Amino acid sequence: MARIRLGMVGGGADAFIGGVHRIASRIDDRFELVAGALSSTPEKARKSGEALGLDPARSYGSFAEMAEAEATRADGIEAVSIVTPNHVHYPAAKAFLERGIHVICDKPLTSTWEDAQALEQAVAASDALFILTHNYSAYPMIRQAREMVAAGEIGALRVVQVEYPQDWLTETIEAGGDKQASWRTDPARSGAGGATGDIGTHAYNLACFVSGLEGAELAADLHSFGAGRALDDNGHVLLRFNGGARGMLWCSQVAPGNENALRLRVYGEKGGLEWAQEDPNYLHHGLLGQPPRLIRRNGAGASAAAGAVSRIPGGHPEGYLEAFANLYTEAAEAIRAVQAGGARGEAMGLLPGIGEGLAGMRFVRACVQSSATNAAWVAL
Amino acid sequence: MARIRLGMVGGGADAFIGGVHRIASRIDDRFELVAGALSSTPEKARKSGEALGLDPARSYGSFAEMAEAEATRADGIEAVSIVTPNHVHYPAAKAFLERGIHVICDKPLTSTWEDAQALEQAVAASDALFILTHNYSAYPMIRQAREMVAAGEIGALRVVQVEYPQDWLTETIEAGGDKQASWRTDPARSGAGGATGDIGTHAYNLACFVSGLEGAELAADLHSFGAGRALDDNGHVLLRFNGGARGMLWCSQVAPGNENALRLRVYGEKGGLEWAQEDPNYLHHGLLGQPPRLIRRNGAGASAAAGAVSRIPGGHPEGYLEAFANLYTEAAEAIRAVQAGGARGEAMGLLPGIGEGLAGMRFVRACVQSSATNAAWVAL
Amino acid sequence: MARIRLGMVGGGADAFIGGVHRIASRIDDRFELVAGALSSTPEKARKSGEALGLDPARSYGSFAEMAEAEATRADGIEAVSIVTPNHVHYPAAKAFLERGIHVICDKPLTSTWEDAQALEQAVAASDALFILTHNYSAYPMIRQAREMVAAGEIGALRVVQVEYPQDWLTETIEAGGDKQASWRTDPARSGAGGATGDIGTHAYNLACFVSGLEGAELAADLHSFGAGRALDDNGHVLLRFNGGARGMLWCSQVAPGNENALRLRVYGEKGGLEWAQEDPNYLHHGLLGQPPRLIRRNGAGASAAAGAVSRIPGGHPEGYLEAFANLYTEAAEAIRAVQAGGARGEAMGLLPGIGEGLAGMRFVRACVQSSATNAAWVAL
Amino acid sequence: MARIRLGMVGGGADAFIGGVHRIASRIDDRFELVAGALSSTPEKARKSGEALGLDPARSYGSFAEMAEAEATRADGIEAVSIVTPNHVHYPAAKAFLERGIHVICDKPLTSTWEDAQALEQAVAASDALFILTHNYSAYPMIRQAREMVAAGEIGALRVVQVEYPQDWLTETIEAGGDKQASWRTDPARSGAGGATGDIGTHAYNLACFVSGLEGAELAADLHSFGAGRALDDNGHVLLRFNGGARGMLWCSQVAPGNENALRLRVYGEKGGLEWAQEDPNYLHHGLLGQPPRLIRRNGAGASAAAGAVSRIPGGHPEGYLEAFANLYTEAAEAIRAVQAGGARGEAMGLLPGIGEGLAGMRFVRACVQSSATNAAWVAL
Repeated sequence: MARIRLGMVGGGADAFIGGVHRIASRIDDRFELVAGALSSTPEKARKSGEALGLDPARSYGSFAEMAEAEATRADGIEAVSIVTPNHVHYPAAKAFLERGIHVICDKPLTSTWEDAQALEQAVAASDALFILTHNYSAYPMIRQAREMVAAGEIGALRVVQVEYPQDWLTETIEAGGDKQASWRTDPARSGAGGATGDIGTHAYNLACFVSGLEGAELAADLHSFGAGRALDDNGHVLLRFNGGARGMLWCSQVAPGNENALRLRVYGEKGGLEWAQEDPNYLHHGLLGQPPRLIRRNGAGASAAAGAVSRIPGGHPEGYLEAFANLYTEAAEAIRAVQAGGARGEAMGLLPGIGEGLAGMRFVRACVQSSATNAAWVAL
Repeated sequence: MARIRLGMVGGGADAFIGGVHRIASRIDDRFELVAGALSSTPEKARKSGEALGLDPARSYGSFAEMAEAEATRADGIEAVSIVTPNHVHYPAAKAFLERGIHVICDKPLTSTWEDAQALEQAVAASDALFILTHNYSAYPMIRQAREMVAAGEIGALRVVQVEYPQDWLTETIEAGGDKQASWRTDPARSGAGGATGDIGTHAYNLACFVSGLEGAELAADLHSFGAGRALDDNGHVLLRFNGGARGMLWCSQVAPGNENALRLRVYGEKGGLEWAQEDPNYLHHGLLGQPPRLIRRNGAGASAAAGAVSRIPGGHPEGYLEAFANLYTEAAEAIRAVQAGGARGEAMGLLPGIGEGLAGMRFVRACVQSSATNAAWVAL
Repeated sequence: MARIRLGMVGGGADAFIGGVHRIASRIDDRFELVAGALSSTPEKARKSGEALGLDPARSYGSFAEMAEAEATRADGIEAVSIVTPNHVHYPAAKAFLERGIHVICDKPLTSTWEDAQALEQAVAASDALFILTHNYSAYPMIRQAREMVAAGEIGALRVVQVEYPQDWLTETIEAGGDKQASWRTDPARSGAGGATGDIGTHAYNLACFVSGLEGAELAADLHSFGAGRALDDNGHVLLRFNGGARGMLWCSQVAPGNENALRLRVYGEKGGLEWAQEDPNYLHHGLLGQPPRLIRRNGAGASAAAGAVSRIPGGHPEGYLEAFANLYTEAAEAIRAVQAGGARGEAMGLLPGIGEGLAGMRFVRACVQSSATNAAWVAL
Repeated sequence: MARIRLGMVGGGADAFIGGVHRIASRIDDRFELVAGALSSTPEKARKSGEALGLDPARSYGSFAEMAEAEATRADGIEAVSIVTPNHVHYPAAKAFLERGIHVICDKPLTSTWEDAQALEQAVAASDALFILTHNYSAYPMIRQAREMVAAGEIGALRVVQVEYPQDWLTETIEAGGDKQASWRTDPARSGAGGATGDIGTHAYNLACFVSGLEGAELAADLHSFGAGRALDDNGHVLLRFNGGARGMLWCSQVAPGNENALRLRVYGEKGGLEWAQEDPNYLHHGLLGQPPRLIRRNGAGASAAAGAVSRIPGGHPEGYLEAFANLYTEAAEAIRAVQAGGARGEAMGLLPGIGEGLAGMRFVRACVQSSATNAAWVAL
């Protein structure tokens, strides 16, 4: 099958996530990067395009320029990846959606609630797909966990514990000009949530994805430990889910010793599941009255849902990039399905989209509002 | 040095914790069990005494009888261990304290707040020691963690995460007559807290012990998942400590796959510490900008505080019973010190006592009150 | 049941293993230490006896004196623990066995092959029990592993991997006068094997105990990395067992980072088992075509054999001292059984005795002989 | 920089390793697959080419045809990946080397010693590069381990323990027609070594790569546990290295519960290092007299050598495919360097080549010869 022609907004030289998207798009060979507006600084955009081997004519100075130009080319891009700071997500996504170009966009959805609502309308008004890269949901063992919960293997859910500690903002490195830290701690570019927006949304998405539950309300105690930091760098959240399950979410960027320690545990009336992002090939399965089992990716007991997003045999570890690539590959399938006349909803399958994006925005908004009212409960 | 003559209240045949106390008292050979009121059923008390080789004359039918009789013997007990359900703690402790007999008592302090206050007065009115068996505080690596925090090795504290999941009440086994489950889920015998009282108090004590912090206020969402269960079997708690640190506490008896998974993590401006009760010989030490270190009991990097409560070389694992024995051995030292005219406060050293007991009771009371008011903040 | 009157040979002040034996003998309250010849230096023996609260009249200057005196007392010792350097095992054991006093003796059996043979005869000539403290065989999960293998749960055995690395002799600390290092690296006191004798015998015993197999022949490459060290401090051994299983044994005292890392893995036609002494409450069970299971002491899936030597619930870790205590408690049962007229062989049950001691001596002898002939195969 | 035009020999439909090579070649975007002789069955080769989107004109029926045709095209392949069963390595590699086409070849080098020698000559006679995919040597933490050893961070080496257990041949699945099992247990296609050739060579290569040592001699006890299996499925090997270090190697395909559990430990006079392929982002570093440290890929303490072959931040796990991609990316650099006139030796850098291939062949030959002479020592 021919590769999908892909453009990219953001992701120039020192960006971390742009490179991740590019590798992810290549792993299963379903995309070809042919155009880019790789930086908001035109000169930097040009140089980054050159470094990536883009045709100079298709290395644009802005996403607006790229959207317009590519939409008129016979060989124009079919899809675009938006990997900018959060405040650019909405205007960029809108520009491409309006032109029928499929959008693969970083999380969180937008920097403001208003943008989120406007983006929802833009998606509704378009025939193109909108895919949000909640990449952790595409790990094989997470897919299996979701499947096991849905099949009732651990019984009716009672408790959901999710946490996402990091340590990279323990010191106020934004003061020293660290680029990543600068925009992620800046309300104008990140939005109302700091740790909550950056990683709390991932944790919340994962909890919902695996449990199949929707949050009903939350009570949050957010804090900025970094001196002078405007956004939260630590969040403690009580969760109540529709149906009666209870939970806790902890996200932190000031927990020394933790790199990217997203970890999910769900407990039902019959069993429990535990998964840690840093050791992603393992799913720990506790069953009441039986010894716990260790289910390994593509090993014995691994399910079809896990196998479908695995490439290599058990014992040959897959990691973050492969999980990210799973989203891209499923995006490719979805795009081809829609291009062949398929319905958008069906094509999306398990891909996170505008719905998950809005859920994340509601999560951040509720956290901020709850924390501002001394951890009062706020509906989700 | 001569062994301390010890009596025991409770701890007959099928009790779990009575046997633990007896082994703990023997490990370092500082006590000799010479008397008991081992059950509230006289016939059972007698049989249990026989099984333990007690002099039949000193195997009593009630703690009151024992207190009275032993107090008048020249070779009467010097100390008593109270290992009954919670509602007996106060009357029993009072009976011995009034007679100058040192008390080693299980946690939580009492079943009611009124009893707790009365016990505080009984302790104040006595010259005898009152020791509460918050045994987890006596693990060597916990002692080291406390020492490291106090020495500023991880910097000013910011975040404290403590959790204590179990799974033994996942099903309502109290309905089937399980003895442990019956009294622990019964408000009349346990008090107002279920999981919060039974294990939440341990978790809270450990968090305070290691961090050196006092709780300022909490917001709690308690729940009973077991059908018809009167007391909470799962508790989610937001914590704020004096000085500004924030934290979370999760205790659960309905988390399948978890046996006794008490786990503490504390994070400061420079580093973090992590300890898990089920693998107690290890202390994980994260330092900003350095690879994490694994400190092992009596291994390289283990401190004097840890060494003082260790018996055997690194790599030869000590466990729950040895930690419990540390409390007994320190109790023996304290009793001999007081008998030699030492001050009670100084003699206590790191031993948990009435203060820790009251803190635990305040914790349970605040949890219950907060949860009853939809997780409003309650001062501790 | 009355406690067994126990004496001890060796185990004075700075000895490590004497204290272990004493704690182990107390944990289940089946022994009372009433006599001792605690050091080969009489003054030190006297002081050590005093520190342990022995009746000064029963604190002897030599094992010979103790054997003679105790044998004539009406309340003389019923059993003796021999916890001296290896070269004393034989003469001491003989002195007590001749007088019908039961012997609990440290491993390896003796320092020389001649002594081992003589001790075999002494045991044969006596009615008393001879118990060798291969303590690792008494860990609950090791008992379960043995039971599972015997029941065919992992199928016919093929491969046995056992290793026992430590690091305490990485530097030649015997040169600095370290007491433990001095006698353990001295052929006159330890025998022909260094690491092989001290820890290799434990590893070999454990492999045989769990697998139920007997060694047929071995090929060993021993080496002393410590400059000027007379005995091996690292041993690499190929093993062939009766029945066709193959294996490897590695023992080392010069592997930095390892404390006491005894680890056993056995593989059969259907499954595998793995156990590590430093995390002894876990037994890893691999089954072909199924996810691996984690069997936890007194947890789900734990067997009767494991439960019989456990004291407290799952999740409350037991350790080295409790495993050691299991041998003492089984020794107490065996002694009482023999005193009641039971047959010696039957009374021994799973306790290691003269047979295991001779097997260990054959192991050391074969290792040394094989290594001296460039790792030629030597029959066991 | 323009992508390198790549061809592939083998790697059709159900092959495992062909897909791995293709993904690895794409991850860093340095190669473009443009030609293939993907199967020895022409029809299957054609269909596989189609599935991969190859130009039908460049999907060949045999490697010989491909070598000839591509060598004459202006846009012919610059490099070829050989991912066939072992017996094809030599003739295929020769065909491309003779035409100046760079070769990236699977291990082990060849199926026979004669072929290995002939291939050595073919490499010598060519200007093209010959790269052998000992992919495990390209894991970031392995690169760091090598660097640390070379820098003397663990002192002069004493002991090297390497093991590689799997379980996929526990049952004789080759009898049922399993394709992988069929050729890997067939001497005609695999060569003289079974487990020794397939995975033992990896283990041996890794031990030498990290330690910087060369094997001097070995003693091997190989066995086939699978009924009727011609090649070894389990190998126990004693190793002696030049310079005096000793070691052990265990490789097995019949160890139930193990997926791909390659694990290396090296110990020197001052410290030790431990690495496990299934958890590859961690390097355990033991230092005498200090607590062990956990060095994490791209985390604190990670070295330049590790960073150079990492793509994403610590805590975002990289896996098997990324390590494999490291070899491809270094191959691309080497090819471009040689094309630009650089010296072949220098261009190779850390890439494994004909030297490592011959070392692996000597290892297998010595294992087989030693085992045939009852584990006598054989020089390497």
